[in-house]
Amino acid sequence: MASAVTPPRGMRDILPTEKSRRERVLATVRAVYRAHGFDEIETPVVEDAARLFSGLGGDNEKLAYAVMKRGLTMDDLARAETPLDLADLGLRFDLTVPLARFYASNRAQLPSVFRAIQIAPVWRAERPQKGRYRQFVQCDIDIIGEPGVVAEVELITATAAALDALGVPGCSIRINDRRILTSMLSALGFAAETHAAVLISLDKLDKIAPVGVVAELTERGMPAAAIAALQAVPAFAAFGAEAATHGATAAAAALTVDSIAAVLPAGVDEQALTDLAAIAAAVAASSAAPLVFDPFLVRGMGYYTGPIFEVAHPEFGYSLGGGGRYDGMIGRFLGADVAATGFSLGFERLIDLVEVDAGHEAADAALLYDADVDLGALMALKAQLVTGGARVRLLKRPKNMKAALDQLAAEGFARFAVVAASPPADADALDWRRLEPAS
Amino acid sequence: MASAVTPPRGMRDILPTEKSRRERVLATVRAVYRAHGFDEIETPVVEDAARLFSGLGGDNEKLAYAVMKRGLTMDDLARAETPLDLADLGLRFDLTVPLARFYASNRAQLPSVFRAIQIAPVWRAERPQKGRYRQFVQCDIDIIGEPGVVAEVELITATAAALDALGVPGCSIRINDRRILTSMLSALGFAAETHAAVLISLDKLDKIAPVGVVAELTERGMPAAAIAALQAVPAFAAFGAEAATHGATAAAAALTVDSIAAVLPAGVDEQALTDLAAIAAAVAASSAAPLVFDPFLVRGMGYYTGPIFEVAHPEFGYSLGGGGRYDGMIGRFLGADVAATGFSLGFERLIDLVEVDAGHEAADAALLYDADVDLGALMALKAQLVTGGARVRLLKRPKNMKAALDQLAAEGFARFAVVAASPPADADALDWRRLEPAS
Repeated sequence: MASAVTPPRGMRDILPTEKSRRERVLATVRAVYRAHGFDEIETPVVEDAARLFSGLGGDNEKLAYAVMKRGLTMDDLARAETPLDLADLGLRFDLTVPLARFYASNRAQLPSVFRAIQIAPVWRAERPQKGRYRQFVQCDIDIIGEPGVVAEVELITATAAALDALGVPGCSIRINDRRILTSMLSALGFAAETHAAVLISLDKLDKIAPVGVVAELTERGMPAAAIAALQAVPAFAAFGAEAATHGATAAAAALTVDSIAAVLPAGVDEQALTDLAAIAAAVAASSAAPLVFDPFLVRGMGYYTGPIFEVAHPEFGYSLGGGGRYDGMIGRFLGADVAATGFSLGFERLIDLVEVDAGHEAADAALLYDADVDLGALMALKAQLVTGGARVRLLKRPKNMKAALDQLAAEGFARFAVVAASPPADADALDWRRLEPAS
Repeated sequence: MASAVTPPRGMRDILPTEKSRRERVLATVRAVYRAHGFDEIETPVVEDAARLFSGLGGDNEKLAYAVMKRGLTMDDLARAETPLDLADLGLRFDLTVPLARFYASNRAQLPSVFRAIQIAPVWRAERPQKGRYRQFVQCDIDIIGEPGVVAEVELITATAAALDALGVPGCSIRINDRRILTSMLSALGFAAETHAAVLISLDKLDKIAPVGVVAELTERGMPAAAIAALQAVPAFAAFGAEAATHGATAAAAALTVDSIAAVLPAGVDEQALTDLAAIAAAVAASSAAPLVFDPFLVRGMGYYTGPIFEVAHPEFGYSLGGGGRYDGMIGRFLGADVAATGFSLGFERLIDLVEVDAGHEAADAALLYDADVDLGALMALKAQLVTGGARVRLLKRPKNMKAALDQLAAEGFARFAVVAASPPADADALDWRRLEPAS
């Protein structure tokens, strides 16, 4: 039986060293976001099934864990028309649907422009694979109630500052706009009702390259003239020269209406160009955030309505986070239109990139006591050290000293002393030995 | 529709001010427990149903939320012999069953004496009532692998230090031992097979007083001689004189084998008396923890095997936390006996007692900007203030300045400046005004 005891399928335990690392990284992210004027909130891990399964979550809804009604009888099972009739709750699969519900529930108590931090786990029953878990943490910031680009600028600068504080080098923030994408597709000759399908192909550009996209669009029976027009778009043609940046064209400082328009066909949405240029100018004026325009950044979710962004890292084929404006969605539970835009960091991917000091504190001390020690005297020594600011670990003096000392060093303890039957009253009078930091 | 949007029944949202308060209190508890040598871990919020519903959780199992299997068909519903056949997971209802599972899964990577911190939510579908929630946070510390009383001493001193750091005054830590209770009942003439029932009555002593307990035992047909012997126990007879301390008898310093035995009938477990006296002596030598012996402290859960404890507060009829030794349980999933004892703080009750500084930081600043502001210049000012250590909130200059300033003050911002169309490049050159802390 012993060998079979594991966490639930696709989930994992967090052991002390990793937990401490995670908490320190999350504290850094939280502190940066708070400094940038965002406020942390928390919602229950479950939401009513009717809200969770309302279509706002796209494909993620299919991956949700449903929670059974309490007190079900066999009659209830017999009467159910679908298995979901037996569920009244579900574990959240993202932090956006709960935010929309939270905002609808609490709007009267929130500022008119509300900047939310949510740092919390979400659950998706995806097929388990290496590095992917069914419970994982997301770090979201959202600005609700601000229709202007100041919201995007605050999100991008705060996210870049968080990445900077974590010491994750080499990231770029790719930006695009859903209005640019759809107006570009119209200008190229793709009918409006085919835009969703074309965007699905374009979203695979870095996987299947321009030639793959063209093949897929042809296979789907898109007009040859539109496909040819797409191939003539400078940014599409140039794609592949810098695959890692996904055809991105320019650093933030150079992003003007003209420089953006230059890589696009004529006829793209003017307001979107103006907004992107304004975002880029304000980001460049106030941050070192490496913003790049990526005309083929799509983002999967259907609910985006304006600027969209994604954090790219040169070493990885996947993004470390992303977001965008989704003006239609937050108001859904409220029955009103509410401006909203958000940026989500994929904490589980990020944590692997972050170098965290192992936390070896000079003050931290281990007391190795003999079995016949005076327990009151031992505890008084511990209390004295704790009061002095140390983290203190008691350990019965082991047979194998070396193994025990190595483990203490690995856990960040810097010194130890043996405490015999009648120890001194003052911890300074103990015979302290240093523990070398684990390499 | 708007008015009907609420969190799931019995659950709640945590708004910014409360969230910030909770996080600061949890950070204090975590820091104290870490200083006392405990290590934080985390387990998934769900466990396999077979483990969660294995009888270790007592009545709490009945309150658990079950998670439905994914991909159920109508055939699965038809074949189910009980509704729980459709569930493969459940939300944890406490942190002890997950700890037992965690220990079984990870023992090879843990120190031989493992001191765990778990600060995490649990879920129970209790009937909703004021101040009771179906999702609530528990703060548990447990020591696994240490059969000696040093474990109890560390738990008690760490818990007392946490309460002290939180500035919760007036708490006492009541202590008893399951071995004392059962040996006392045997000595008084209650048959072993009636002990569980008698303990249920004794557990109500502070609610129904000695007269109520006697009536209940009589009604249950317990032997008159045993009931009379119980009434002759000094601590039982004295109960009520100090109802708030539940008949507790003496401060820690005075707890010796003799002083404990003096309030009990002859024939109670000698080892338990020796252990309690050793715990009391070591706690008194190293801590100001106000330990009191309470011979009628029972604790509800059936799995306790040795010393048990509870935090009492003079203002409340309920405990703020409790725990005890449960040597039989941690090893259940491992198929081996493992010594274990733990102490759980009821965070949701504690948080109401804690005074937390509202976090009014002199550096924190609001920038009230005009609609025609140069966005880059505004963001550069914000970046400058953030870099200087401030928390910065942007706000469009509102029509109603007073309401906006009051809200900023309530959120802890200490100063504000208006930023007009072409602001200065240096934040110090702004016309700063103070915000008075909200009273």
